[in-house]
Formats: sequence, structure tokens, C-alpha cells
Amino acid sequence: MLKRYLPILSWLPYYHKRLLGADLLAGLIVTVMVIPQSLAYALLAGLPAVVGLYASILPQLVYTLFGTSRTLAVGPVAIIALMTGAALSSVAAPGSETYLQAALVLSLLSGLMLVAMGLLKMGFFSNFLSHPVISGFLTASGILIAVSQLGSLLGIESSGFTLVERLVSLVPNLSAANLPTCMLGVGTLAFLVWLRRHGKSTLRRLGLPSSIADLVAKAGPVIAVVATTLTTWHWGLADQGVNVVGDVPAGLPAFSLPWADASLWRALFIPALLISLVGFVESVSMGQMLAAKRRQRISPNQELIGLGATNLAAAVSHGMPVTGGLSRTVINYDAGAQTPAAGAFAALGIALVTMAFTGWLYYLPIATLAATITVSILTLVDIPMLRQTWRYSRSDFSAMALTIVLTLVEGIEAGILGGVTLSIALYLYRTSRPHSALVGRVPETEHFRNVERHDVETVSRVALLRIDESLYFANARYLEDTLYNLVASRPELEHVVLICSAVNLIDASALESLDAINARLKDSSVKLHLAEVKGPVMDQLKKSDFLDALTGRVFLSTYAAWREFAQ
Amino acid sequence: MLKRYLPILSWLPYYHKRLLGADLLAGLIVTVMVIPQSLAYALLAGLPAVVGLYASILPQLVYTLFGTSRTLAVGPVAIIALMTGAALSSVAAPGSETYLQAALVLSLLSGLMLVAMGLLKMGFFSNFLSHPVISGFLTASGILIAVSQLGSLLGIESSGFTLVERLVSLVPNLSAANLPTCMLGVGTLAFLVWLRRHGKSTLRRLGLPSSIADLVAKAGPVIAVVATTLTTWHWGLADQGVNVVGDVPAGLPAFSLPWADASLWRALFIPALLISLVGFVESVSMGQMLAAKRRQRISPNQELIGLGATNLAAAVSHGMPVTGGLSRTVINYDAGAQTPAAGAFAALGIALVTMAFTGWLYYLPIATLAATITVSILTLVDIPMLRQTWRYSRSDFSAMALTIVLTLVEGIEAGILGGVTLSIALYLYRTSRPHSALVGRVPETEHFRNVERHDVETVSRVALLRIDESLYFANARYLEDTLYNLVASRPELEHVVLICSAVNLIDASALESLDAINARLKDSSVKLHLAEVKGPVMDQLKKSDFLDALTGRVFLSTYAAWREFAQ
Repeated sequence: MLKRYLPILSWLPYYHKRLLGADLLAGLIVTVMVIPQSLAYALLAGLPAVVGLYASILPQLVYTLFGTSRTLAVGPVAIIALMTGAALSSVAAPGSETYLQAALVLSLLSGLMLVAMGLLKMGFFSNFLSHPVISGFLTASGILIAVSQLGSLLGIESSGFTLVERLVSLVPNLSAANLPTCMLGVGTLAFLVWLRRHGKSTLRRLGLPSSIADLVAKAGPVIAVVATTLTTWHWGLADQGVNVVGDVPAGLPAFSLPWADASLWRALFIPALLISLVGFVESVSMGQMLAAKRRQRISPNQELIGLGATNLAAAVSHGMPVTGGLSRTVINYDAGAQTPAAGAFAALGIALVTMAFTGWLYYLPIATLAATITVSILTLVDIPMLRQTWRYSRSDFSAMALTIVLTLVEGIEAGILGGVTLSIALYLYRTSRPHSALVGRVPETEHFRNVERHDVETVSRVALLRIDESLYFANARYLEDTLYNLVASRPELEHVVLICSAVNLIDASALESLDAINARLKDSSVKLHLAEVKGPVMDQLKKSDFLDALTGRVFLSTYAAWREFAQ
Repeated sequence: MLKRYLPILSWLPYYHKRLLGADLLAGLIVTVMVIPQSLAYALLAGLPAVVGLYASILPQLVYTLFGTSRTLAVGPVAIIALMTGAALSSVAAPGSETYLQAALVLSLLSGLMLVAMGLLKMGFFSNFLSHPVISGFLTASGILIAVSQLGSLLGIESSGFTLVERLVSLVPNLSAANLPTCMLGVGTLAFLVWLRRHGKSTLRRLGLPSSIADLVAKAGPVIAVVATTLTTWHWGLADQGVNVVGDVPAGLPAFSLPWADASLWRALFIPALLISLVGFVESVSMGQMLAAKRRQRISPNQELIGLGATNLAAAVSHGMPVTGGLSRTVINYDAGAQTPAAGAFAALGIALVTMAFTGWLYYLPIATLAATITVSILTLVDIPMLRQTWRYSRSDFSAMALTIVLTLVEGIEAGILGGVTLSIALYLYRTSRPHSALVGRVPETEHFRNVERHDVETVSRVALLRIDESLYFANARYLEDTLYNLVASRPELEHVVLICSAVNLIDASALESLDAINARLKDSSVKLHLAEVKGPVMDQLKKSDFLDALTGRVFLSTYAAWREFAQ
């Protein structure tokens, strides 16, 4: 029981020296690698850069206690930072004290929701974020984030949280672009893109061992940070209009409980819910993928509790909403992390930096961070997926397209909610006109197939109708129409057999329709029979009066009905 | 084509004298019978009584042109009147000119929506009103209407549109009840209830022929109207505090287009949509029932157009929202109406009354009308249905209960929307944890059954898993969990066969999951196979790369897979 809610107990007692070495190394690598992105994502959310560091310390330590994934690294991530920024700027002015408090309120709400969902075992909730919606949302967010970084890359002002707002605020200022900033920003961008595409192979051609080439290629952002910071410091570029991170307060964050008036809590409720769901989906799908690689399992409901606790930790330590991050987790995994202890070591490493080395970040150009963000989020933009989905299903594609368009034009909340609503509506519409087929016997066998697709035996006074869908309110009337039309078009009909092999549910509306069908067929002297009713469905039918009223019988198999009427 | 949109062309050319006699008689009976209820429902909606007459003239004539039901009678009905009253009182003060105009705007909006839905063939929309929601809504509305009439029955003031509002406004005035009104109201109520329960049998025991006894029992409201009107007139009860209908303007309504400012149109949009859907469902289900009795068919999409035109007619002739009414239709049907001409004759009859005989309605007590409404709507309260639904399915019952509670406490819109939302959510939840079963071969046959329910043959290196649900976003992850757990718990496994006989759809999210499952099983050296994939599902899978990546094969039948691996 205790182990279930404190997964640390399942690995800490078995910890030994060999694991310690691997975890320490991974922790060190993660510390160095995630500092730039932590700063960058805090800026993306409109928060001071140091908040990104705070959000990488206590939350990660808490996840070590409560998380079920061995390698997940938690902290600020791009999508959640974008959503946080959108939510906060709708309730407070960026830079204000309320804005900072709102970030903590958002973390607290999100943490409480996640813990509650975990305790209530409501992990299934995230299933309503269908793949096309997530994929469309990530693509649109990638575009939004890239555009949002354009201003920082060029050294001009930009604001807003939809594509149009961003572009409108950006274009008039284009002529005011700052040349040194542009050079640093665009230079870093080009360097990172090149390193990502060709770095590894080039370094290997230069004679480096594969593992070191790999490490250097991955350390691109760190190299860029060090190089541009030194450049900016040496040539005094900060005086020439290059925005730098500047003074970062040294020391660990103080503990505090977020405060705000009731209207703020209410205003942040829906954003917190969406942040929780999106964060959970991102985190758990990555956790599952990596666990699968090592034949481990993660528990989605405990992950909800773990991520919830993580966000509560962020809320009381001046952080921002966090979740399991794609890039930081991959770094951790590739660096050889064996247990969550690696994450704890990384958190301690970042704490050390926050206490003693923030001065080193003074000359770090914002443009460098913007380039780092841009490169890492462009992987979210998945154009081939658009094409694949279009090819596979127009219906799924339309949900994806709506999500993308709404996210870009109306904002993140509208995008997700619109996409989810359309997904559900389309699914209901599809099931509201169920496929059904008149079947006949494949000669000499006990199998029955669609009369339109196969050459099968039929008998004119018997109709064998297979319904390929659960029967529920959305298709109950359609079923009535189908059967009435069938009976009206075949006056010689004496028996209708409904084959229920694909009927997994008959709800009260459908039961009402079956009652009506049974009565009406009786008026026409046609008997209604059922065949291949599944166990659970039959159990439920027995709770109603339908089986007593049924004019015909319930057959175990279609063949049994066939033998009765056709032979 | 013309016949499709003008169903009158399908019967008028074949009209002959025998039909004329039957239709004229039915028209006469309907004229007399529906006048009291038309007045009553207008009052229920907070409108002048005469509006109920206006709404029974032109709309019925228009339905004669466009409707596909032979016997449906349209006009004001209880539920729609209640919904109209709730909608109007939220935007205007009862009795004001705006209130009257708003009724016309509501008719116009509702008419336009119905016509649009008909032209777009969106009749399926009404399917989302599941049976438990409709049934719960009718029960709650019956209670609401009964309580709303208490004030009129007792001669005291009451207002509000939720149960609590009604009761709160009623109770303090109870001591001010008017004695003559109480006697008329409660006396009429008792008379009508007695007549409905025991009238027919008593009259037959008194020696009347069955058909006349039947007619008298049905004419109860007319008898009550005549008797109480004469009583009130003779003893001058109007001067003793009995509210009467009073002056009803003589003459037909003038044509006019409704006007109102934009905010009113917006405010009435959702109510108009709900009124359209509820009215359509009530009308079409009754139309279908009666058509079935005479082996006729109605076309739901043309009915939408017909009811839409009917409401447009109400909007331009000072009416109120109308639909096919339960009681007036049953009167029409029982009176022997053969074609929609009967409805047209009734409309002309009511027009005649409106032109020349409104003076006769002066002394008609409001309490009599209240008693008429109360008796007719109490049939909506269906307590046995509550019990049946509870027994059949807790899930359906919870949707019904929520609809009832919300309708009573929060109002009609909240009730319907809440019920529909919960129905959809519960359906999605149920399908998100699909039933699946490991199956084995029934010895000596080609049939396969659940290993837990039957004594069947199995082979430990082969798992035959039947999934009893379409695979889509809400259950894609559940499928992954099921399979990963299966593989983890049976290390000797070499082949997994997914039996898809109940899978009617695989959406993009589920395809993604199948891809992931296939890849992960490959890592564990387990091959994934499919069996009994339906034609349409197979066609769609062929549009993706999944079948190329699949480690195993696609078998036509489970038996084919069994033969391959188990023998």
C-alpha cells in the first residue's frame, strides 16, 4: 500500500554503488543541459528566467518520491510554458506581482487537480485528447512558439498569444531590429540546426569516437550558451542593445503559499485543467515509451499523483507549472540514468547553480535562449502526420485541422476544446449511422457473410441482419428505420434475425426501440429473433421485459437460426 | 421532387367524397375539443389566451401543405408552451409588448432552424435526446406545469420557472386563496380525473353505447368549459374574484414580421434550438407511432421542413411556437381523420370561432383551463419508467435522474443540456473500457468462446483476444494496457491474435496505438496477428502503413489462425 503511493520504496532499498555511479554522471549531464532550457521556458511563459531554475529543483525532488517512471525528468516544458503564458496574460499584466502569484496559483490548481484525478483513478480522462487533436495541437503550438521567439531573435518587441496578435505586433517593429542581436540569434539558430542535422556525422568524419560525437551534438545548446555569453561579455554587446538575462537573484527560493482573490482562482480553473491534461498526456506517453524500452511499467494513476505533487511543490517554491519534459527526459535517459536518484542529483546540481553561480548567467543573451527554444520546438511541427491522417481518415483529419486552425487563430484553449468536441461529435455521428449488412450462408459452412460482397445462400422469407455497432440512443431510431424499410420492401418476409455479434451494449433508448420494432413486426406477422447475443448484453436484457415480449427466439449462433428456418 | 417537398400532392389528387365526410366530422370535433387547450397553453406561456387560437389556424393550414403525417394536428402544446414561457420571461416582462414580440421571434428562429435542419437532412440531431433524457424531462416538466397551475386553481398569484421559485412565490399567498375559484378549479379537476378514470365504464353501465360513452369521456374538458362558463356567468362569479378569460379580440390576426433588437435574437437562440429539438422529437415520434398503426410512413427530414414552415406561419400570424401535439393528434386520429384535410377543416373552424364567437369565452374561468392543463400533463409523469430504467441500467438511470433534478431545480435548458451531456459522457466512458475476452476453441467446432465462461481448448504460446468494441481515441490506450499486461503475464507467448469481429471502426488514435503495440510486441519477439477484420475496417487499414509493418498476418477467421498455430 505504502509502496503504491510512494514508489521510491520499490527501488531505494535495493540501491547499490554501481547504480550510484551511473546516476551521478547522468545527474551532472542533466544539470548542465537543462539550465538553458529552464531559463528559456520561464521567459516563454513571461516569467523571470530564475523561475525556470526554481521549478527544476523541488518539483524534481518530489517526483523522485512519488513518480513511477525510472527516468522521467520533470521541470518547465515548452508547451506548458506557452499555455501558462497565455493563461497568465489573460488575468494579469506581465511583470506584475499578480502575474507571479498567478503562476503559483496555476501550479497549485493544476497540482490539486492531478492529485484528485489520481486518487479517483481518472487517468482515463486524458484519453479524450485524441491523437489527431494532440498532434494538431503540438504542430500549432510549435508554430506559435517559433513565431513568439522571432521578436527575441531579432531584438524587437512582440506580444500577444495568437498567431495574428503576434504577427501584428511584430511587423511594424521589423525596421527596429538590433543588428548584434540578430547576428547572435540567427547565428545560434543556424549553428544548432546544422549541429542537429549534420553535427554527429561531421564530427565522426573528423575522427571523433561515436559516443563523444553524440555527446557534443547533444551539448549544442550548452556550447551556444557558453560561446554567446562569452562573446557578449567580451565585446560589451549588452551596451549595444543585446538583451541579456541580467541579474539573477542568488539563493534558493523561499517557501510560500500562493495567494490571490477568488476571481483569479475561478479564471484560472479551465486553463489549469487543460494544462493538467496536456502535461499528463505528454509526460505519461513519454514515460510509457521509455519504460517499454527497458521492460518496466509505469502506473498512470500514480503518475497523476506524482505529477500533482510535483506541481504542488512548484507552487510553494516560487516555480511554475511543470511536467515530464521530452528533451530533458531523453537527455537523462541517454546519459544512462538508472533510477529516479539521477533526477534528484540533477535537482541538487541546479540548486547549487542557483545558490552560487547565477552571476555567470548575467551576460547570457536572450536571443540565444530564443534560438534554443525555436530549434527544440520545431520538432513538434509534424507535417507528414498531417498528410498521413488525411490519407487515413477525413474525419480524424478534420479534428486535427480544426485544432490547428483554432489554436493559431483563437488560442490554445479554443484549439484543444474545439478539437476534443469535434472528435467526440464525429465519433457519435459515425456510430449514429451504424453499418449493417444482410448476410447469407457461405455454402457448406457455418459462416455467414455480407450478401453484397460474397456469393452466399439466402432464403426469401428469412432476413439475417448483422448490426455492426453497439445499440444506443444515437442510433436507436436509425435501427428502427432500417428494419421498417427492410420489412416494407420484402412482403414475403416471415422472420428477421438480428445478429448481435458486434453489439456490445444495448442502452435504455435502444431497448425502447427494440420493443417498438418487436411490436410493429408483430403487427406485420413478422417474427423478430436475436442471434449471437454477447454474455454481458444478454445479462442486461434479462433485467427488462423485452425477452418476454419478443415474438421470436434468441439463438446462440446464426447457424442455429439458419438450421431452424432455412432447412 | 415537388411531391417530396409538398407532400399534399401525394394525397390531394386522389381525394374523394367518402374521405371528405370523415375529415369534416373529425375537423368539427377537433375544433370544439382543442379550443380550451389552445387558450390554456397560451396562458401557460404567459401570453394572452387568444394567441393560442391564432397559433392553431395558419400553422395547421401550412402543415397541411408540407407535413408527411396524415393525422398529426399541430398547435400549441404543453411542453413547448412551458419552454416558451421560461425563455420569454428571461428576456422580457410578461404582458409587455416585447414579451409578445419575443414569442414571435422565438417562433421565427425555431422555424428557420427546423427548415435548415430539414434541408441539411439533420434529423439525426434529435437522436442525441436519449430516451432517458426525454422521459426524465417530460416527468419533470409535468411536475413543473402542475405546480405552475396551482396558483390559477386556487386563485392566487405565483411566478417563476423553477420548482423552488414557484413554491416560494406560492406559499406566502396560500391564505389569500379565493373560495369560488378554488371550488371551480378543484371541482373541475376532480370531475376530469373521475371522467378519465371511471367515466367510460360508468357511462356504459348507465346504458350508453360504447362509442358515445367514449366520446363523452373524451369531451370532458368541453363539458367542463361550458358548465363552468355558464356557472360563472349566471352567478356573477367574476365579481367575486374569479379570474376569467375576459375580452378576447374578435377577428383574425393581422400578418406581420416580428421585430426585435439583436441582443434579443441572440438571447433566444439556444432556447429556440431546444424548443425545435424537443418539439421535433415529440411530433415525429407520435407521427411515426400513428403512421405505423395504419402502415403509412413519415419522412423525418420532410417533417422538419413541415414543422419549420408551421412555426414560420405562427411567427407571421401573431402566434407562438407550435408542434405536433399529443392530445390534439389523438383526438384527430380517434375522430376518424383520414387525411391532413381534417386538420385544415379544424383550422377553418377555429378561424370561424376567432372571428365571430370570442364573446362566448368571456366568462370562461382561468381555473377551468388550469384544471384542463393539469389533468392532461399529469400523464407525462411516468414513475414506472423511472423504476424500469433503474432496473435495466444504472447508467441510463443516472442520466434520467440528472435531467429530472436539473429541470426542477435549475430549469428546462439546464435539464436537457445536462442530461444530454451526461448521456454522451457515460457512453464514452463505457466504450473507453471495452470488454475483451481471451477465447478458446469449442472442441470439434470452428467456434471460439470466452475461456472464462466456457470449457474450451487453448494453447499457451497463442493468445486469441477478442475485442468487443470499436477502437477509437477513448479506448486506444486501454487497448495498449490490456495487451502489454497480457504479454507481461505470459512469458511463453509467441503469437497474439486480435479478433476484430466486433470492431467496426479503427480511428487514427487507435491506429497509432496498434502501431505502438506491434512495435513493442516485436521487441518481445511476439507476433501480432489480426482476424475477422470487417470489410470497411480493412479497406481503411489499407490506406495506412500499418499492414506493412505488422509482424504477423491477417486471418479471415479465428479458425484459420487456430489451424495455423495450434495444430
